[in-house]
Amino acid sequence: MTDNTLISIQDLTVLVSGILTNAGFSQPQGDAIARTIVAGERDACKSHGVYRIEGCLRTLKAEKVNPVAQPKVMQDDSAVVRVDADAGFANLAFEMGAPVVAERARKLGIATLIINDCTHFAALWPEVETMANLGLAAMAMCPSYATVAPAGGSKPLLGTNPFAFGWPRPGGTPYVFDFATSVAARGELELYRRAGKQLPEGWAVDADGNPTTDPTAALAGAMLPFGAHKGSAISTMIELLAGAMIGDFTSPEALDYLGTTTLAPRHGELIVVFDPLRMSGGRGDAAAKGEAMIEAIAGQGARLPSQRRFTARQKSQSVGIELTPAEMDELARLRDGGLAAVRD
Amino acid sequence: MTDNTLISIQDLTVLVSGILTNAGFSQPQGDAIARTIVAGERDACKSHGVYRIEGCLRTLKAEKVNPVAQPKVMQDDSAVVRVDADAGFANLAFEMGAPVVAERARKLGIATLIINDCTHFAALWPEVETMANLGLAAMAMCPSYATVAPAGGSKPLLGTNPFAFGWPRPGGTPYVFDFATSVAARGELELYRRAGKQLPEGWAVDADGNPTTDPTAALAGAMLPFGAHKGSAISTMIELLAGAMIGDFTSPEALDYLGTTTLAPRHGELIVVFDPLRMSGGRGDAAAKGEAMIEAIAGQGARLPSQRRFTARQKSQSVGIELTPAEMDELARLRDGGLAAVRD
Repeated sequence: MTDNTLISIQDLTVLVSGILTNAGFSQPQGDAIARTIVAGERDACKSHGVYRIEGCLRTLKAEKVNPVAQPKVMQDDSAVVRVDADAGFANLAFEMGAPVVAERARKLGIATLIINDCTHFAALWPEVETMANLGLAAMAMCPSYATVAPAGGSKPLLGTNPFAFGWPRPGGTPYVFDFATSVAARGELELYRRAGKQLPEGWAVDADGNPTTDPTAALAGAMLPFGAHKGSAISTMIELLAGAMIGDFTSPEALDYLGTTTLAPRHGELIVVFDPLRMSGGRGDAAAKGEAMIEAIAGQGARLPSQRRFTARQKSQSVGIELTPAEMDELARLRDGGLAAVRD
Repeated sequence: MTDNTLISIQDLTVLVSGILTNAGFSQPQGDAIARTIVAGERDACKSHGVYRIEGCLRTLKAEKVNPVAQPKVMQDDSAVVRVDADAGFANLAFEMGAPVVAERARKLGIATLIINDCTHFAALWPEVETMANLGLAAMAMCPSYATVAPAGGSKPLLGTNPFAFGWPRPGGTPYVFDFATSVAARGELELYRRAGKQLPEGWAVDADGNPTTDPTAALAGAMLPFGAHKGSAISTMIELLAGAMIGDFTSPEALDYLGTTTLAPRHGELIVVFDPLRMSGGRGDAAAKGEAMIEAIAGQGARLPSQRRFTARQKSQSVGIELTPAEMDELARLRDGGLAAVRD
């Protein structure tokens, strides 16, 4: 017996979109944001599900996002598709750019989607999954806020800078990964602090740049990249490619702009899209070769990334999304209260 | 006092090329391979310097590389430049493809260089540095042989799969990194074994897939990726993009083809090239933004990747490359003995 509520993907999308439009988002913005939030909840990614609604509203209340943004897609005969997100959330901008960059990648073999002037609150797997569902491989990356010290450094400079990759699999869910290039998320440090537990070694430095396992000292200091100098290098690459190169904020600039990490960060996003049919150049079946590799990984008992999400998705699609009474209360509170109900 | 020899970059290049052409390589192949080997020696990358000559000759002696290969560059109006390396070493193929992909990237914003049917023995920094010296950012990646178990797995499947990135810096050496996606190189395990030392934890599993710090058990088992499941995911991405997608060997296929890890591996290579001028789209100065980030990293005392190489290079360029008597003997032995002098 449980007091949980089962709600269909479609009904939850309408509900979330209603909360957002009631708070001031335009219908296209509200719908696109709702689709992303419900996709997170559908996949049992609780940290990117219904939980995120209040953060979106908080960012709107602080006037750090344009709720009626009208993204503009710019294309020419090059391999670069650029979307000016008009200071709105990234979701609608991505949805509008996705079919255009897919067409360019099919024509040219490789193409890139640049989203500028967007605010980002979601994971990057929706981006690479969208491309994989179109039969295309893709990498996606973006900066965030300066909360991570470079390997060997002592001060927050890099963001948690996510990196995602998708590869289409015939007749099934794609091969998808999406991870922060920090060793942990900032929220995890906070959970350790509340639980009174020490952090694992290698997660953080204190305000003086010394290694620490004290979560309070870590929160006043900086997190560290995953994989020591290698992860630090990848995170730096993301600052350069998806910040400096595309003419948008790097993580220190994003933090300067907002002055806080409690609002969704403003920056750009870079997606690189490959058409395996064009890239293989008639040299055998790229899909079959990919399957052989992926099946060999799973065949030795190693977990494929995103499998937990896909299992949860299957359940959500067949029986609906299960929400707790607290989550249903949160939805009702934000629906009825609008921006006035948003807590700092 | 030292018995070491100082030799100019140019003289060493002529000497190494002579060894290679004497053994059967064509002049263009020998020159391109020699340039790469001498670049390694010049940068004090001993593991990619003169030490590599014998491996190149061993691969030729085993008839696993075409010493007179004539790479063919194929281009059309797409963003994909493909070089058929004609079963030769990758170096000449890359040198021939580099200006072509640079031209495509300048025209289209992003472009990709695919090298097929090549044999690879070098680092990937020469590729990304070449692009950076043309004012372009680049990623390079390739499979190798199956010696690394995926995170959570138990058997060799992935290669040490290097990943490199270069970013042009105005008026200076570029920002460049190049690392194996395994936690260590196979040669390092061998050094631990000879020294009778235990491996650090997390480096390897034994033949049954259990974690081990015994180097002998590790050499019979598998190495592990850097950064646990995140590094494993990046290594898998390299198999998919630079193996399956470009119609070339993945790491298990490369090992099957050679049957040994003592010869240079046959596979392909993928280089993704970005023109920051095109990618920034007039939104500010990408180079200046990049400098701010790179200087902030160095400014907090964190080491920038490749700095040790650049320091060594400066010395080599001003006073010459310093070789030990053993290295000079090795050069003389291979010059005079040709393929017959090659040890297994």
